[in-house]
Amino acid sequence: MTVTESVELRGHIIDSGMLSRLLDDVLDLGSDYVIERFDVGKRPEDESYARVVVSAADEDTLSRLVMRLQSHGANPVDPGETLLRTVEADGVFPDDFYSTTNLDTQVRIKGHWVDVQHPEMDCGLVVTDEATTPLVHTVPVSDVRAGDRVVCGSRGVKVLVPVKERSDESAFEFMNSVVSSEKPQALQVRQVAEQMRAVRASGRKLLWVAGPAVVHTGATPAFSALIAGGYVDVLFAGNALATHDIESALFGTSLGVDLSKGSGVEHGHEHHIRAINRVRAAGSIAAAVRNGVLTSGVMHDMVRAGKPFVLVGSVRDDGPLPDVYTDVVEGQRAMRAQLADVGFAIMVATMLHAIATGNILPASVPLVCVDINPATVTKLSDRGSAQATGIVTDIGLFLEQLAQELTGYRRS
Amino acid sequence: MTVTESVELRGHIIDSGMLSRLLDDVLDLGSDYVIERFDVGKRPEDESYARVVVSAADEDTLSRLVMRLQSHGANPVDPGETLLRTVEADGVFPDDFYSTTNLDTQVRIKGHWVDVQHPEMDCGLVVTDEATTPLVHTVPVSDVRAGDRVVCGSRGVKVLVPVKERSDESAFEFMNSVVSSEKPQALQVRQVAEQMRAVRASGRKLLWVAGPAVVHTGATPAFSALIAGGYVDVLFAGNALATHDIESALFGTSLGVDLSKGSGVEHGHEHHIRAINRVRAAGSIAAAVRNGVLTSGVMHDMVRAGKPFVLVGSVRDDGPLPDVYTDVVEGQRAMRAQLADVGFAIMVATMLHAIATGNILPASVPLVCVDINPATVTKLSDRGSAQATGIVTDIGLFLEQLAQELTGYRRS
Amino acid sequence: MTVTESVELRGHIIDSGMLSRLLDDVLDLGSDYVIERFDVGKRPEDESYARVVVSAADEDTLSRLVMRLQSHGANPVDPGETLLRTVEADGVFPDDFYSTTNLDTQVRIKGHWVDVQHPEMDCGLVVTDEATTPLVHTVPVSDVRAGDRVVCGSRGVKVLVPVKERSDESAFEFMNSVVSSEKPQALQVRQVAEQMRAVRASGRKLLWVAGPAVVHTGATPAFSALIAGGYVDVLFAGNALATHDIESALFGTSLGVDLSKGSGVEHGHEHHIRAINRVRAAGSIAAAVRNGVLTSGVMHDMVRAGKPFVLVGSVRDDGPLPDVYTDVVEGQRAMRAQLADVGFAIMVATMLHAIATGNILPASVPLVCVDINPATVTKLSDRGSAQATGIVTDIGLFLEQLAQELTGYRRS
Amino acid sequence: MTVTESVELRGHIIDSGMLSRLLDDVLDLGSDYVIERFDVGKRPEDESYARVVVSAADEDTLSRLVMRLQSHGANPVDPGETLLRTVEADGVFPDDFYSTTNLDTQVRIKGHWVDVQHPEMDCGLVVTDEATTPLVHTVPVSDVRAGDRVVCGSRGVKVLVPVKERSDESAFEFMNSVVSSEKPQALQVRQVAEQMRAVRASGRKLLWVAGPAVVHTGATPAFSALIAGGYVDVLFAGNALATHDIESALFGTSLGVDLSKGSGVEHGHEHHIRAINRVRAAGSIAAAVRNGVLTSGVMHDMVRAGKPFVLVGSVRDDGPLPDVYTDVVEGQRAMRAQLADVGFAIMVATMLHAIATGNILPASVPLVCVDINPATVTKLSDRGSAQATGIVTDIGLFLEQLAQELTGYRRS
Repeated sequence: MTVTESVELRGHIIDSGMLSRLLDDVLDLGSDYVIERFDVGKRPEDESYARVVVSAADEDTLSRLVMRLQSHGANPVDPGETLLRTVEADGVFPDDFYSTTNLDTQVRIKGHWVDVQHPEMDCGLVVTDEATTPLVHTVPVSDVRAGDRVVCGSRGVKVLVPVKERSDESAFEFMNSVVSSEKPQALQVRQVAEQMRAVRASGRKLLWVAGPAVVHTGATPAFSALIAGGYVDVLFAGNALATHDIESALFGTSLGVDLSKGSGVEHGHEHHIRAINRVRAAGSIAAAVRNGVLTSGVMHDMVRAGKPFVLVGSVRDDGPLPDVYTDVVEGQRAMRAQLADVGFAIMVATMLHAIATGNILPASVPLVCVDINPATVTKLSDRGSAQATGIVTDIGLFLEQLAQELTGYRRS
Repeated sequence: MTVTESVELRGHIIDSGMLSRLLDDVLDLGSDYVIERFDVGKRPEDESYARVVVSAADEDTLSRLVMRLQSHGANPVDPGETLLRTVEADGVFPDDFYSTTNLDTQVRIKGHWVDVQHPEMDCGLVVTDEATTPLVHTVPVSDVRAGDRVVCGSRGVKVLVPVKERSDESAFEFMNSVVSSEKPQALQVRQVAEQMRAVRASGRKLLWVAGPAVVHTGATPAFSALIAGGYVDVLFAGNALATHDIESALFGTSLGVDLSKGSGVEHGHEHHIRAINRVRAAGSIAAAVRNGVLTSGVMHDMVRAGKPFVLVGSVRDDGPLPDVYTDVVEGQRAMRAQLADVGFAIMVATMLHAIATGNILPASVPLVCVDINPATVTKLSDRGSAQATGIVTDIGLFLEQLAQELTGYRRS
Repeated sequence: MTVTESVELRGHIIDSGMLSRLLDDVLDLGSDYVIERFDVGKRPEDESYARVVVSAADEDTLSRLVMRLQSHGANPVDPGETLLRTVEADGVFPDDFYSTTNLDTQVRIKGHWVDVQHPEMDCGLVVTDEATTPLVHTVPVSDVRAGDRVVCGSRGVKVLVPVKERSDESAFEFMNSVVSSEKPQALQVRQVAEQMRAVRASGRKLLWVAGPAVVHTGATPAFSALIAGGYVDVLFAGNALATHDIESALFGTSLGVDLSKGSGVEHGHEHHIRAINRVRAAGSIAAAVRNGVLTSGVMHDMVRAGKPFVLVGSVRDDGPLPDVYTDVVEGQRAMRAQLADVGFAIMVATMLHAIATGNILPASVPLVCVDINPATVTKLSDRGSAQATGIVTDIGLFLEQLAQELTGYRRS
Repeated sequence: MTVTESVELRGHIIDSGMLSRLLDDVLDLGSDYVIERFDVGKRPEDESYARVVVSAADEDTLSRLVMRLQSHGANPVDPGETLLRTVEADGVFPDDFYSTTNLDTQVRIKGHWVDVQHPEMDCGLVVTDEATTPLVHTVPVSDVRAGDRVVCGSRGVKVLVPVKERSDESAFEFMNSVVSSEKPQALQVRQVAEQMRAVRASGRKLLWVAGPAVVHTGATPAFSALIAGGYVDVLFAGNALATHDIESALFGTSLGVDLSKGSGVEHGHEHHIRAINRVRAAGSIAAAVRNGVLTSGVMHDMVRAGKPFVLVGSVRDDGPLPDVYTDVVEGQRAMRAQLADVGFAIMVATMLHAIATGNILPASVPLVCVDINPATVTKLSDRGSAQATGIVTDIGLFLEQLAQELTGYRRS
């Protein structure tokens, strides 16, 4: 006995590959399909339409299949009624909870489609104000509470896949290409600069996620120029970036490497732990700035510019600095709290915090990941941040050129 | 005006490169030296002796220079008297605190040399029972408390560098060679196996630190054979290893990849979040084993074997599983608590937790790091775990061969 | 003014992505399309059919566009008449020559479709015996001669894209997946072994292309077992593999590394040049085997087994060995001469010779590329060998396991 | 029975690590030593002196050991008399020929030390004009002829290791550091620029070795500015660099990627074979420039500037271009012919030609290797080019910055 569901999708479903991925997934999951109707768009600008009946061995498999197809933009022809269940224990969803994508999503409640607030992947959907004006929130499993009303199964949920416009070539032409270091990088710098100017002009925020190589590669002055120019609204990082930045400001070294000479005492490691100790003595980075202990560097400039930063710790950290969230779940909450109005995210030289940020960003926020290691960029996309554009290049030179492009910065 | 200190070192100081590194560091730090005495060992088995007067611009620089030279095994001829200061605020060392290496260390208190308990790098030295039988502990900055007595400056501290015996070739002949994938790996597997047998025979513990690629590469059965054979005494990992192991046990997939076929629905990502949810419902991994929810896999086998594991979270985690320490500083404490009697550490396919473990291990514990990415191995050594031996190879095949060598395991 | 051509394609053109790649390429090249007809296959097993009118600014662009679309399996509805031109100078094609793919191809001559002999990419098509029984050969530009008759433009040429059967899952299920080291490698070894057994059973030849890491990783005994077992019919390599193999046989070292110990005098480099000198003195590798100079190793075993090998030199070679083709164009000819009846090609630990072999292999020969570096595998596919399956793993352990699987080999 | 030899070395033999490497190698080779005399240099600027008696099981082993120790700068106290043997067959050395390093070397003939012309590694030493004014040449095995007189054994040969001056910090301070992408790259660009200016001012030549990524990364205009500025005296490359440069000039693409947009038709591969065909029709690159077929790009600019280039083919080449040496041994000869007066070599984005050039360069020529892949740089050093300085960075941005530094170039 098999159960079936009729799903439909419309748009540039052939040349975008949506339809072929959908059919692929149906078969990969051991299910079957029949294409009931197919209206092909004759010209490049025309939309196509497909209605596909998918079948599976049981309701549970069918429900999970439909959730997956939704991530390709296919939704049930008959949306059905949303099933809500009440959470029984803090931090535990019902077993058949709807697991979110990071795409724009709507939930059908009492015959109306309600937008999901702030899409985020791998969360549940909690409905509040059910009786009056229902609101739908994405909630990570650690934050769900007993009594919450959670969407279960795939009925009554609709996922809206953004239409990729071929004509929209202004932004990232290299976006769909393979990640490679063999690209015209100077051009990519310019395209990123244009995108950042446009986002800033629109009043939305520029989010940076940065790793310690920003300091090691000597790019601190360039990054400071970007802060001064107003191109860094929020900064996410770990203990390492802030520590090495402050070590550099206090001792002129980064992990013991003398940045003014490029040569280095690789073993001069204790500098970083002394830097941490001094900031702990001051109480916070901002206090160290106020006290005159810290007088330069990225963290100093963020404090002076009044821009927020969120530092989240990791198990390999020394110290850490007093500003660092040692509880990673609290750190994630602090990061989420800064996402409102972010219009563009750029991740440089960090895998851990890049993935962490990718996890909580809606797919609608453009995302550029810059790293000298192609694996970092690939891993980010594999984790579900399909909107990520990768640039494989040298961080130090990239930031120099970006600052030059945006602020006229020249290395003295 | 310059200040000077006379340091001495003895042993195989020429062919081990100790002396040349020492002189190098003196000059790198902008200081100067005079070799006062040099007795060369004439034959390979003879020890040499050198006394070197180092000079620096001021006491503070000299003190930091001497700390660094100690990490090469050079100690002041006149050890001097230990300076102890009282900590004024929780979590903050005095500014001139002695920053530790991970080598065996002694502190001179009231004319006696006292061994430092459990050497760990980047810590301070806290002295207790000063009046009676003084004890010296390594304490990370986050754990120091107001009122603690902390060693300051480099006077009265002696670092003991292990003598590398050339004749001790049984264990790791490839140890000092360059990290490379172009090595006879089958031989390396055998050498690791011999080392593990020897450590187990001596009654000490085998510590594993593992990343999720153990699951992705299909090596779970091989790893289970190693647990069953008694070759896994403690396991350190993150949320990802445990989650994908449990996902694999519950759904037969790892990050959505069907492990029995090797093909895969790369997008079947929600399985891992469902796996997490089920274990959260059970309350803990051990409870899920007791309840019959979890019936196979690495985590299951560790629970059944009664072996401890420490899972520490990171900012990119989903969930996490209920057993995961979300506070990284608490996680570090839990890891430290498992280090007693560890005689050998092996790290497979993880950079974050490998470095975290390297940070807290004494240099006297042999450490093998296995990864397909040479950068992981290099990074570990760069961070100060000089005893790390790197093997660049495929994790899946490595674990297969190791299990075959140690337990006669054959893939069915 | 635009010119148009009507092309058609049939088969699993949606789920294989053929159609979307075709439409993509039309637009990428600045051309336009109209889908004239589209018959969708309703069920997974049904074929679809599309007829697309493409238009371009001029005949030259249209001709190049059609050549490209042919590589996706789309051919003109009206094949037209083949245009042949006479070559004017040795080694130079007419300007508008048809540039080949490595797919099965047919040329329409006097109203009949004639198969192209041995498809090879980036060649021209030379027609002989035009008046009687026409034959069509792929000829590289260096080998074309004045007076040859060459196909020009895209008219009268048909490219046949192989149908990928979803049900044909026996062979390489991991084939279409992303290249990654995080795969169940033991399973991949088994799948390669099955494929090799099947090809041998069918009477076709197994071609190996190998780099020197086969020797450096200590895999020589495993490779010898494969030769002895009859799983190596032809070997392509460079001077390095043969030299280090012979160095290892004569001196027990490979690039100066003692393979029995795994430790090594990395600087013992002169061994390889002495090995080369001895074989030069003998006159050839086969002569060195006959003389008793060379008594073991991969090259020795190939000679003893009477199996052919082609060694082609490169600019970085020392020596080289007397068997090495120093002229690379002659080397390519020697490689081509060994391709008849090859049913399977496996490339281990070599980028240069892997790409060289990929360049001359028809797309119909399955091709597995094994390397610890994902970039090698990716580069091979990017160069046009779309049939390449990549396995990212350790060469030494891979060959051990493969030999174990195929021949029962166990390291002594 | 053992045989012994007394060797001596002098200079900064401790802090440079020369002595410890020497003792290490003696033991690695299973031999033994006694340090007979050791005069330590007391201060950083003082030289030390050591006399070491090494012993081995037989003359042959001792001779090979001494050859190796010479590469560390240790020479026999009693140089002995040079043994010359007559070559019996073309292309074959006597079995005990002296295998060269790339260091400055002298040979003792009739009581006088004669300088070796143009040191090159892995060659033999041929003595001409023995009776009158003896000359000593390095000759690769392929070029030795019957009747040549060749130095055999290690007696009468002295190797001069350059003294590394610590004070000579102007040039490459990062020279001795670990290869890493986490370096202040902007500083490295400046140091390379300074070095190039100094070499040009001294009247010596700047040699470039370049791979096709120079074109793919869009750095052609920057490279052209360097040619125009007089910073490229000789260019070594393969068929690929020249082909993609010319493809880009003729079609605006590089491997089918449209460089002005950064997006690209990755499959537009036939452009490069058409570009090759056109140059073949012209007869040579210079002829294509004269004919007006080729009007821009790196190759065009080299021809216009009257600067020599050597293109050497490889087995993976298409075509090739008519200027390409298809015989690699002839190609090596052509490269050697351009080395006179080269004062600095820079290798960008090429492994094959970088190693080939490293093989024939004397150790006295400074050598910088720039690549985004750390493995390329490491491999070059491992092959014996110990003087190589590695810079891990993005080629495109590196060339932009270098051209900006040296010529004031700004991307339009």
